[in-house]
Amino acid sequence: MKTHYFDYASATPMDEGVRQRMQPYFSTSFYNPSATYLPAQAVRRELEAARSIVGDIIGARKSEVVFTAGGSEANNLAIQGVMGQFPEANVVISDIEHESVIRPAQLFKHAKAPVLPNGIVDVDRLISLVDNQTVLVSVMYANNEVGTVQPIRAIAKELESIRRQRRQVGNMLPLYFHTDAAQAAAYLDLHVSRLGVDLMTVNGGKIYGPKQSGLLFVSSRVTICPIIWGGGQERGMRSGTENVAGVIGLAAALQLVQGRRHDESLRLQQLQALFWKLLKKKLPNAVINGSLTQRLPNNMHITLPYQDNERMLLELEEQGILAAAGSACSASDEEPSHVLRAMGLSDQEARSSLRFTMGVLTLEEDILTLVAALEDLIRHTA
Amino acid sequence: MKTHYFDYASATPMDEGVRQRMQPYFSTSFYNPSATYLPAQAVRRELEAARSIVGDIIGARKSEVVFTAGGSEANNLAIQGVMGQFPEANVVISDIEHESVIRPAQLFKHAKAPVLPNGIVDVDRLISLVDNQTVLVSVMYANNEVGTVQPIRAIAKELESIRRQRRQVGNMLPLYFHTDAAQAAAYLDLHVSRLGVDLMTVNGGKIYGPKQSGLLFVSSRVTICPIIWGGGQERGMRSGTENVAGVIGLAAALQLVQGRRHDESLRLQQLQALFWKLLKKKLPNAVINGSLTQRLPNNMHITLPYQDNERMLLELEEQGILAAAGSACSASDEEPSHVLRAMGLSDQEARSSLRFTMGVLTLEEDILTLVAALEDLIRHTA
Repeated sequence: MKTHYFDYASATPMDEGVRQRMQPYFSTSFYNPSATYLPAQAVRRELEAARSIVGDIIGARKSEVVFTAGGSEANNLAIQGVMGQFPEANVVISDIEHESVIRPAQLFKHAKAPVLPNGIVDVDRLISLVDNQTVLVSVMYANNEVGTVQPIRAIAKELESIRRQRRQVGNMLPLYFHTDAAQAAAYLDLHVSRLGVDLMTVNGGKIYGPKQSGLLFVSSRVTICPIIWGGGQERGMRSGTENVAGVIGLAAALQLVQGRRHDESLRLQQLQALFWKLLKKKLPNAVINGSLTQRLPNNMHITLPYQDNERMLLELEEQGILAAAGSACSASDEEPSHVLRAMGLSDQEARSSLRFTMGVLTLEEDILTLVAALEDLIRHTA
Repeated sequence: MKTHYFDYASATPMDEGVRQRMQPYFSTSFYNPSATYLPAQAVRRELEAARSIVGDIIGARKSEVVFTAGGSEANNLAIQGVMGQFPEANVVISDIEHESVIRPAQLFKHAKAPVLPNGIVDVDRLISLVDNQTVLVSVMYANNEVGTVQPIRAIAKELESIRRQRRQVGNMLPLYFHTDAAQAAAYLDLHVSRLGVDLMTVNGGKIYGPKQSGLLFVSSRVTICPIIWGGGQERGMRSGTENVAGVIGLAAALQLVQGRRHDESLRLQQLQALFWKLLKKKLPNAVINGSLTQRLPNNMHITLPYQDNERMLLELEEQGILAAAGSACSASDEEPSHVLRAMGLSDQEARSSLRFTMGVLTLEEDILTLVAALEDLIRHTA
């Protein structure tokens, strides 16, 4: 049976070109980039070239790119790395962050800003939570469950005006802005100064690169302390012999997705629009979760009232359709999604919700199969 | 020109079989192991099978194996993960630990035990540093610079008698024993109960597996808190979508090196003995650093009095010989090795020292070439 994969937000197949680019670093170019001989120095240069590629894409200096082992580590480094230096200060996050932002934030004084029912953070409420002891604000670029794109630039502007006010009253505490761009990196502009962020997370495993590759952009304005100490690699911010193949793969993947993001966004938006249209026609009771306009082009999140999502996933899988009820990270626990709850869905509604995320291999026929299968499923239980 | 690689302690070329085992997880088996559909569950099973393989080799239960992104992360998790829970307690380490043990230990109350001039930790002095507030002792299994094998079992026995004494006086503080087995894993017995350790670090990048793969054995007796928080992977001890290819590669590499360790140790010991013999004959002024008997079979560390090691490395490289002055991790800084200093070498002697580490591709002809090159080098400066 043909597989229709609708879980790109959870994992992306590695791009074949990316895979091939990584291979030499498993064999001939295996040297430790910190060694002094020429072949190792050549590996070091290629590692640094990858850093330049990333820097160029996100508009950062090479020295502002810290390679990490994945997105969760990068989020932890951002939150713990800043907050660990200011034990009396607080961090403000949104109510719909990924667990790898929520959990480290909970180690410190923190406040959570609500989102509107459309899954977009309430900027006024967020800003009102920023007090004179706030040193860090972290709001994800795009949500991993409902795909809503957050108003990063607008938040950055508000924070800049708070910084100005602070300077006037002599409050010398820094106020940094972090965004988790794990889900956004394949589709949105990652230029850090256009976004107005001081810290940004990118995750290789979500952009057709290797799993547990990632990076944290750390603006030269920001001081962070490491969470993994040792030999002092990554300018002291992430010790451990560099995962050279992973870094090369991450840079190649980022280059790939950012190079095609306009075309690919357009293509997926058309499939997304087709899905909405067919859904409305064939399953008029279905509810679409999250803003339709401020949304990743690859995300479709719906509630099918009174249906059980676990049962639906099993039935869809029988048709070869692989999808998700929530984020894979918390798939193992039984709690209803904190994201849907924050948007005002009841636990019952959350348990009737499904996430379909598309990617480079998704075609119109996949959408048609998906809608037909959903129709079938509803018809059987009617 | 033929290359003679003598820096296996710094990086190992990935085994071709290991590389091939990893490939499916980059392409067809790319699924997120936390997803609920069958293809993802199959990936989960393979991940857990890798955990079983590792568990069998080190004599641990599956639930005691925590996969990390490399050895440095595993060392940090051991030290920070235990010490973070006991802010008033202290950790005792040896004077010759890797930076990824020393640096996290320095975040807490700590004491460093000296080593004897032969590079073996002074067990009596170490044990005398363990007071009634000590919760963790960390001594590496084999040193990364001079290859000395530490008396892990003897230390474990002493710690066990301290634990008994503590119970008698009602001191309920735990006393855990961690060993960093990064350099030992290819040559020595890793059975954790035979060793008597509660925590053990293994690093994939040093055993012909992928860089930034690794694991921490965490005995079921030990509670550790994570340093990377999030989705709760690795039983909450290391969040982040699992690096499936890396884990598969690590398990395959560990299986490989542990399967051949007796034969390979014997083979390398013969080459090591040949090197010592030729060295004594051709360069009688050379000093061998570290115990000759309690030593990894692949390590040769020498001082050539009054020679400058940076210059020697350059000249050796001209003959195709790739070696190291110290550990690659600290190769970039200019400080003389803390290991050699701890063994009583002067800074001048440390700067005249070279490390040669062998591996699976090292042959007798490499040793002959090395000795001839060293002879040449000394002759030129005589």
